[in-house]
Amino acid sequence: MNSSPKRFLIALLATAGTFAICGAEPAADAKQAVRKVLNDQVKAWNKGDLNGFMEGYWNAPELSFYSGGKKTRGWQATLDRYRKKYQGEGKEMGKLTFSELDIEMLGQEHALVRGRWHVMFAKDRAAGLFSVVFRKMAPGWRIIHDHTSSE
Amino acid sequence: MNSSPKRFLIALLATAGTFAICGAEPAADAKQAVRKVLNDQVKAWNKGDLNGFMEGYWNAPELSFYSGGKKTRGWQATLDRYRKKYQGEGKEMGKLTFSELDIEMLGQEHALVRGRWHVMFAKDRAAGLFSVVFRKMAPGWRIIHDHTSSE
Repeated sequence: MNSSPKRFLIALLATAGTFAICGAEPAADAKQAVRKVLNDQVKAWNKGDLNGFMEGYWNAPELSFYSGGKKTRGWQATLDRYRKKYQGEGKEMGKLTFSELDIEMLGQEHALVRGRWHVMFAKDRAAGLFSVVFRKMAPGWRIIHDHTSSE
Repeated sequence: MNSSPKRFLIALLATAGTFAICGAEPAADAKQAVRKVLNDQVKAWNKGDLNGFMEGYWNAPELSFYSGGKKTRGWQATLDRYRKKYQGEGKEMGKLTFSELDIEMLGQEHALVRGRWHVMFAKDRAAGLFSVVFRKMAPGWRIIHDHTSSE
């Protein structure tokens, strides 16, 4: 083996390394994976499965959830907030739908999702806008920040 | 020159290439640049300079601004919204401050900024949370999406 094939091999490995560092998942696949997380959240909500719904969120103390001037920090606190708001005394989870979804890739490892949420209760409805930032993690795409506001 | 230094040189160039492809601005510099845009916005606002304040936003029809269940799309529409809300008949711009700023890099080209906004008027005050996504562009870091909610 002379030095030329060796050099080619080194260059090839270096190129492969570049792709590995920059991340190579095509944007369409990433968007589809993000959309699936949101769809799974809606399915879980509509089965009354709040823990299943929470699987879309980063299970970490750094998760942040902003709503109506109030900050909630951490996965557990976010779950507790949902429980209090939708499973407390005299509360109901209702039927959740998302609409006007816009998934925008922010590089290879993050995505911004803008959308509108709607919850139909037995005798009432609630709705508003949300903006969430997803990060690609080992277990999949997870929400690291959620800013929700009501109409 | 034997093959060892050559291989080292090739590896070095490949590494340099990786940095060039992935983007090389250190996170601390990027965060400082983002912070400066926000500081400049506050300065402009407090001089009553809404056009100067708007320089922090992406000057494009794709800019999005979410607040209180209402979507505003595009730089011009966002400026018009601010004008109506803060410079209309009997309105005042007040004194703006940001607090609890958290700037988080999302890769090399995007940043998520979480914070609280406060506006002190002559006889009143308003406050709330905001989440903005910045993108690095040729003219500098610009807000591509703003989700603001009131207390």
